[in-house]
Amino acid sequence: MNKHQVLEQVTTLWNTHIAFNQLLGFTITRMDPQESEIRFAWKDELMGNPVQEILHGGVIASVLDMVGGVVAAANIIENLPQLDESIIHEKLSRMSTIDLRTDFLRPGRGNEFIATARIIRKGSKVAVARMELHNEKGTHIAFGTGTYIVG
Amino acid sequence: MNKHQVLEQVTTLWNTHIAFNQLLGFTITRMDPQESEIRFAWKDELMGNPVQEILHGGVIASVLDMVGGVVAAANIIENLPQLDESIIHEKLSRMSTIDLRTDFLRPGRGNEFIATARIIRKGSKVAVARMELHNEKGTHIAFGTGTYIVG
Amino acid sequence: MNKHQVLEQVTTLWNTHIAFNQLLGFTITRMDPQESEIRFAWKDELMGNPVQEILHGGVIASVLDMVGGVVAAANIIENLPQLDESIIHEKLSRMSTIDLRTDFLRPGRGNEFIATARIIRKGSKVAVARMELHNEKGTHIAFGTGTYIVG
Amino acid sequence: MNKHQVLEQVTTLWNTHIAFNQLLGFTITRMDPQESEIRFAWKDELMGNPVQEILHGGVIASVLDMVGGVVAAANIIENLPQLDESIIHEKLSRMSTIDLRTDFLRPGRGNEFIATARIIRKGSKVAVARMELHNEKGTHIAFGTGTYIVG
Repeated sequence: MNKHQVLEQVTTLWNTHIAFNQLLGFTITRMDPQESEIRFAWKDELMGNPVQEILHGGVIASVLDMVGGVVAAANIIENLPQLDESIIHEKLSRMSTIDLRTDFLRPGRGNEFIATARIIRKGSKVAVARMELHNEKGTHIAFGTGTYIVG
Repeated sequence: MNKHQVLEQVTTLWNTHIAFNQLLGFTITRMDPQESEIRFAWKDELMGNPVQEILHGGVIASVLDMVGGVVAAANIIENLPQLDESIIHEKLSRMSTIDLRTDFLRPGRGNEFIATARIIRKGSKVAVARMELHNEKGTHIAFGTGTYIVG
Repeated sequence: MNKHQVLEQVTTLWNTHIAFNQLLGFTITRMDPQESEIRFAWKDELMGNPVQEILHGGVIASVLDMVGGVVAAANIIENLPQLDESIIHEKLSRMSTIDLRTDFLRPGRGNEFIATARIIRKGSKVAVARMELHNEKGTHIAFGTGTYIVG
Repeated sequence: MNKHQVLEQVTTLWNTHIAFNQLLGFTITRMDPQESEIRFAWKDELMGNPVQEILHGGVIASVLDMVGGVVAAANIIENLPQLDESIIHEKLSRMSTIDLRTDFLRPGRGNEFIATARIIRKGSKVAVARMELHNEKGTHIAFGTGTYIVG
């Protein structure tokens, strides 16, 4: 397997085996060390404010945490000297978020939502990612910063 | 209606009308300006890591955001000069989270989870709350800090 | 006085009357609602790690807090219906930081440092700014996010 | 040398060799893995707002960053299998802050200021500390959370 194939495999695994992502309807649409992306559609179950009909802040924090984790994982795979399946599996299962900051910029209104993430600090033990959430019209809804254990 | 009755009414409304809280199984068990509390039970849909069988980080961020909002709303009600229903309704529907920081301390394992929140900065426009998440054995799983528009 | 003159006047006042900025050598070099900037030179008193000879993390947090405050103040002035001096004075003296997050990306090495800030959330009560710190070679040293009371 | 002596030695070294702490007047008054403390006196150079005569937000962020680093370093020393001086030196000089959140609760007024820190997440690579700042009357001025590389 080459790196591209590994990224495809992990994408498929995470899209089908992380229960909470399925509950919310999150789909990893790009797992790439440069920039990763998750998309999800509006559904009424994601509503946090019945008067304003907008996304719950927790949905926004969840997708930002997840997409930051995806780009951090893509970087782990990118930097592996060897693509041994058991090492990949072990490394990814031990990955975890240390802290997450979410800045809510505008109400979460839209039909589809696109979360993207890039790495801003690379390290052998810790990676920091910066995330953004937009809707299908390009409205910027939220910023996030996540610190992840990757080593 | 006195303040106690207003808090009861808002609790019932939010427990039955915020779709995302119902999807996740969150129940407000105490809405009090001193300390508010939300509880929820483990269910497999909340899983974020199929290998470790622990809560998704997004579930943790969601409940911390929500419980901080509950204690901030209880403080809005506490400080109202008059308990006019339309004013309460309008104030609460305009409340929103500006930013949220989540510190993940330990894996989210347990049968029941208890999130609590207290106000650390009161103001007429902005309130800051500090939140904690424990499981039913008292294991401390996460800390949070949230800044809310309340004015 | 027009807005441009007010911004010049506040810049001069803050560059000469905020004791801590003078202690550290910070100079506001652009006060503009779109993007504001502060510059400072290396000096040994700003060192945090005598082995590595790099800026103290507190210096970095300080300049990011300050430059975020400058862009927030520029936006207050931009949005005033009238340029009444006593109103400007009162508004700016009541401005304060609610919370500040600093992400340290690389060691603070260099001869000159440039901090910039842009507003990412505008509001009548609260503004959120995003800040960056680079050295004179363009090395990206830190990111920041600050939430400010402006109303 | 036993652990107590090592902590004393590092305290003396940091109190006399970190230029920025001396510039601001910070003194480590307790370096202990349970809780560490830094104290400093008011001086006009630390002022951030000439109208209100209060501490600059950067002073507050600086002392919180520093005291969190002290408690993180005390934990590194606590957990060393052997007290080899060159290992201690190397470990401490490689320590760094990844991210820092400061919550400003009340204006920084007082004659003396006391910053304290405790570890909330221990790890072999990363430690998270929670910090508080009070004045000599016990007024709670700020909260902080810092994530540090310790491995």
